[in-house]
Amino acid sequence: MGKLVDSIDLPGGLRELDIASLNIVAAELRDELIDVVSNCGGHFASSLGATEITVALHHVFDTPHDRIIWDVGHQAYVHKMVTGRRSQLSSVRKKGGISGFLRRSESPYDCFGAGHAGTSISAAVGMSVALARQDPSRFVVAVIGDGSITAGMAFEALNNAGALGLRNLIVLLNDNEMSISPNVGAISWLFSRALTSKPSTLARSGFKSLYKRGYVPELLYKAIDRAEELTQGFMSTPAMLFESFGFRYIGPVDGHNIQALIQALINAKQQDVPVIIHARTTKGKGYEPAENDPVKWHGVNPFNRSKGEFDAPRSAASAIPAPLYQTVFGESLLSLAKDDPRIVAITAAMASGTGLEKFQKELPQQFFDVGICEQHAVTFAAGLACEGFRPVCAIYSTFLQRAYDQVIHDVCIQNLPVVFAMDRAGVVGNDGETHQGVFDISYLRTIPNMVIMSPKDENELRQMLFTALRHNGPTALRYPRGNGTGALKEEPSKLLEIGKAELLREGDDVLLIGLGPVAHTLSALADSLCARHGITCSVINARFAKPLDEALLTQELPRHKLVCVVEDHSLQGGFSSSILEFANDSQLELQHVIKRFGVKDSFVPHASQAEQHQLNGYDAASVSDFILRQLQHDRKVVNI
Amino acid sequence: MGKLVDSIDLPGGLRELDIASLNIVAAELRDELIDVVSNCGGHFASSLGATEITVALHHVFDTPHDRIIWDVGHQAYVHKMVTGRRSQLSSVRKKGGISGFLRRSESPYDCFGAGHAGTSISAAVGMSVALARQDPSRFVVAVIGDGSITAGMAFEALNNAGALGLRNLIVLLNDNEMSISPNVGAISWLFSRALTSKPSTLARSGFKSLYKRGYVPELLYKAIDRAEELTQGFMSTPAMLFESFGFRYIGPVDGHNIQALIQALINAKQQDVPVIIHARTTKGKGYEPAENDPVKWHGVNPFNRSKGEFDAPRSAASAIPAPLYQTVFGESLLSLAKDDPRIVAITAAMASGTGLEKFQKELPQQFFDVGICEQHAVTFAAGLACEGFRPVCAIYSTFLQRAYDQVIHDVCIQNLPVVFAMDRAGVVGNDGETHQGVFDISYLRTIPNMVIMSPKDENELRQMLFTALRHNGPTALRYPRGNGTGALKEEPSKLLEIGKAELLREGDDVLLIGLGPVAHTLSALADSLCARHGITCSVINARFAKPLDEALLTQELPRHKLVCVVEDHSLQGGFSSSILEFANDSQLELQHVIKRFGVKDSFVPHASQAEQHQLNGYDAASVSDFILRQLQHDRKVVNI
Repeated sequence: MGKLVDSIDLPGGLRELDIASLNIVAAELRDELIDVVSNCGGHFASSLGATEITVALHHVFDTPHDRIIWDVGHQAYVHKMVTGRRSQLSSVRKKGGISGFLRRSESPYDCFGAGHAGTSISAAVGMSVALARQDPSRFVVAVIGDGSITAGMAFEALNNAGALGLRNLIVLLNDNEMSISPNVGAISWLFSRALTSKPSTLARSGFKSLYKRGYVPELLYKAIDRAEELTQGFMSTPAMLFESFGFRYIGPVDGHNIQALIQALINAKQQDVPVIIHARTTKGKGYEPAENDPVKWHGVNPFNRSKGEFDAPRSAASAIPAPLYQTVFGESLLSLAKDDPRIVAITAAMASGTGLEKFQKELPQQFFDVGICEQHAVTFAAGLACEGFRPVCAIYSTFLQRAYDQVIHDVCIQNLPVVFAMDRAGVVGNDGETHQGVFDISYLRTIPNMVIMSPKDENELRQMLFTALRHNGPTALRYPRGNGTGALKEEPSKLLEIGKAELLREGDDVLLIGLGPVAHTLSALADSLCARHGITCSVINARFAKPLDEALLTQELPRHKLVCVVEDHSLQGGFSSSILEFANDSQLELQHVIKRFGVKDSFVPHASQAEQHQLNGYDAASVSDFILRQLQHDRKVVNI
Repeated sequence: MGKLVDSIDLPGGLRELDIASLNIVAAELRDELIDVVSNCGGHFASSLGATEITVALHHVFDTPHDRIIWDVGHQAYVHKMVTGRRSQLSSVRKKGGISGFLRRSESPYDCFGAGHAGTSISAAVGMSVALARQDPSRFVVAVIGDGSITAGMAFEALNNAGALGLRNLIVLLNDNEMSISPNVGAISWLFSRALTSKPSTLARSGFKSLYKRGYVPELLYKAIDRAEELTQGFMSTPAMLFESFGFRYIGPVDGHNIQALIQALINAKQQDVPVIIHARTTKGKGYEPAENDPVKWHGVNPFNRSKGEFDAPRSAASAIPAPLYQTVFGESLLSLAKDDPRIVAITAAMASGTGLEKFQKELPQQFFDVGICEQHAVTFAAGLACEGFRPVCAIYSTFLQRAYDQVIHDVCIQNLPVVFAMDRAGVVGNDGETHQGVFDISYLRTIPNMVIMSPKDENELRQMLFTALRHNGPTALRYPRGNGTGALKEEPSKLLEIGKAELLREGDDVLLIGLGPVAHTLSALADSLCARHGITCSVINARFAKPLDEALLTQELPRHKLVCVVEDHSLQGGFSSSILEFANDSQLELQHVIKRFGVKDSFVPHASQAEQHQLNGYDAASVSDFILRQLQHDRKVVNI
């Protein structure tokens, strides 16, 4: 028997269906989503939870004439399915396939791109102002999770929207009591005890009319009217919060009940002020293993649908892979913090992603998850540092962008000992454009007092964390997504000298300088060039992007005819740029220009990390090819 | 007769005084503040409004054992006076004098530095956590204005503080219904209609006890308990907002009534959750002209106290100065926006500072002040740009740091035509470390799609704004604080070619490259070197920091023995760094290294802009000296 969803034009056809049919379509879409993601992986639990919301939205609104803005975007797989991308879903997050997030260039239905949290209301306010001037009948809906709405910019947007009184703006709060990890913060508790409310206009007039008709004594009415506080202790609800911002509140609504959602959306369209609809959903809805453990099922690799088990890695026969950098970071920090109560770990809703779950469990008193609030995370850390603590902010490189001003203004100007553990530095693979950690060296090295380091392997990561926690000023520690190199763990951990690089190989033909794990790659490359072509290379593991090891560079740079600098970072103002500055300013007499390898000046789309290295020409093969071509050109190569 | 304030040890002595004496001291301090600032200038109206708050805080709390964190800091002049800096107040914001903001290095009473708004609660949460573990009897008080508290990070901090339930944390909201300009946003309206409330514990139990004693019918009690919305329409108050975040609300309190303030603070110390005290104040209190026009009197030059008039500029005899860059920007944008309704101006509470007051008045429909919410400002602009508008975000260079992620994630990835008008780019003079606009080229040029320009004079500023509004992608336009060069206005405005520099002088000895008004300075320098020493210089007005004029650089860089690049920006990854990258990557054969002039790798303290240029060695004299020394060394100078 054919599926109902196959028989209609999407998404327009959804507008014609009755509730019963919409329920069938939603079930079919969810089923298909589970099937596809179990085969190809992707962000999973959020989209499962937003299936009915998606169907209801495209039923009530005339998309894309009306605008739906999905915050973050990983709740939007079903949206992608109903807007012309069903057949492409299996290509999600793969090179050349559809993006895992929203993307304007991908579809007119993706009216605002997103990968970071909390942006949707601001964008919606902008669109709402613009559309209202062109055609007041058009609506803008921002769909935002309860985790994302705690981001400061979401509050800024609510405040502005309320002041502007935008009547074509609807915010749909998809409240699953989770951001990626379980939610934190005072208002998340508020959401969880929301009361069922009557339609707002009714309730609004109710009490007043009771009073007018004499059912409420004047004294009491006035007392209530004045002593506003008395109601708060036992009446705090999300309604109060949002009405403070000038929004009308509708909810809570069962976010898996299409009929209720449609009623709320139609009600919202009729209001004369901005509206917030509070929909309660279950993350992972409809797939039991995901409902039971939505953190584990947030973003997934392929899995066995019926068993609810993840597929074994393809190369099951091969050796156990080296640990993830994040795991090494988390374990190392835990071990250091056990010995020193001044050490505290701070995450912005990324305990799992940053490898801090075990830390959270074992040292809860030294662990702070502040929610998706990178700005607060950093200045909170600064406050702790002022009082003698040693805070470590574990924030992905791309998310630290959100706290750039706080890094400068609250940490670096005051030269406070805060450690920024920048996970996911460099290209990040299938998350794509929005999540690349390829700007941090540029934006951090311009800040005075900042020390920037990056380890060649997981053992050096341990040493650098150890070193950073002993440095009396701000440090940024960047390390990539993925597995380490399998380096052995040295105990006890070694204190590194700030600004001192490591000479890994000595040779005469070529100087290879790498920052981070690329230094490890360059060592292997040097060995291979020597073995296969008799080319000898010096290899520097830079360790520090700031300060540079000026002595070693002064010694090595002029000595080699060919110098290659490789970084997993933008070439605009990054690590290799700082080497150029040093070589120029100290008037080193180089034999040749420096060849720089790194991320080119365009946003890197989703693909595997290896593909992204290749695309930007800084994979080992590209570096090797360049060296061979160059030396051949110089007629130095004995044997190619 | 001696002053009472002279007879006590500050601030400890304040703790011993009775209310009558505290009132006298406050009056004396205010009087002295007016006297000193009328002579030396400084941030004025905010500190006048916070006089009683300051006295009450140092009376109730054992500072610096207890911590007072002042948001922004320009409300803290009286705090500086009572903490050992009375005699230095006249040196405020001058080279070598005390800072206009808070600074940890200046006094143990300045426990957290601040210049940007909205940071105090986050820092206080950090300190509160730290102190609570060491000695639970110590308190942390954040004093924050009603403008600052709308910053997203302040909400993030409130949410986190509420969740942590910090009992030693007090937030004192200094509500003068103003940030710098009059306040905007939904919650500012909320503050302005705050109701007087009873002490919280009383009110909290009141209604419940009335019900228990039978005065409130059960049906009504339950109805109120459930139908939370009905109360909001006529009972919205700040209390609701803050109690949503888990704070206990006390207020509003008359912020000029020391007795009331002290009572509220003592009450706050006894609560078992974080407390917000809402104090209503009058900005400019006690000096009538400032009360009447607090925007004008926010930060002032010296003035005549009795007349309430600003002193005439010292060189009154000289010619009328060239217009301020901000004025030219504002007028130019107004004129362009009159012809094109798609053009909208967005400011983050800086209508006056960015020269947009006239625009606001004449084109209110095309003007948006979003409050101190730079993040929202940028993504709001992105939303407008998606719908065909041409938004111009007028945000100081230093404040755009607050929206760095939004610039990358919401504007540049989507390649949207948003113009960033970065006023106060370069060193900013007496605001000092926290406000320097010397990082923007580094943090922006690493972002793909971004075009960065800077005009040599105010006429070119007009042309660049005209050009930016016609460019189909993001542009950043950086221009300094202060007056233009007196350049004549060309009409109609000229469209500049993106990435095309201007060759201002042609010569053979030296190549001078400048970005922004330094290019103008370099022209004059070239003329003087030629006239006095027979040295001929080529001068390039770069116009664009990104993209560079590669053709012109390829032509000029190898041709000159001496190349000097001058920028009003950090030398770490800035404009001159991009020239090094280009010269290196395109393998230009230069005759010598490039001499780079700009801001060194340390935070620039307050002083005049000229002093700051000099301190960093990129004033005209320093460049000239270098050239003469260098050419003399090369035995090329005919006549020194």
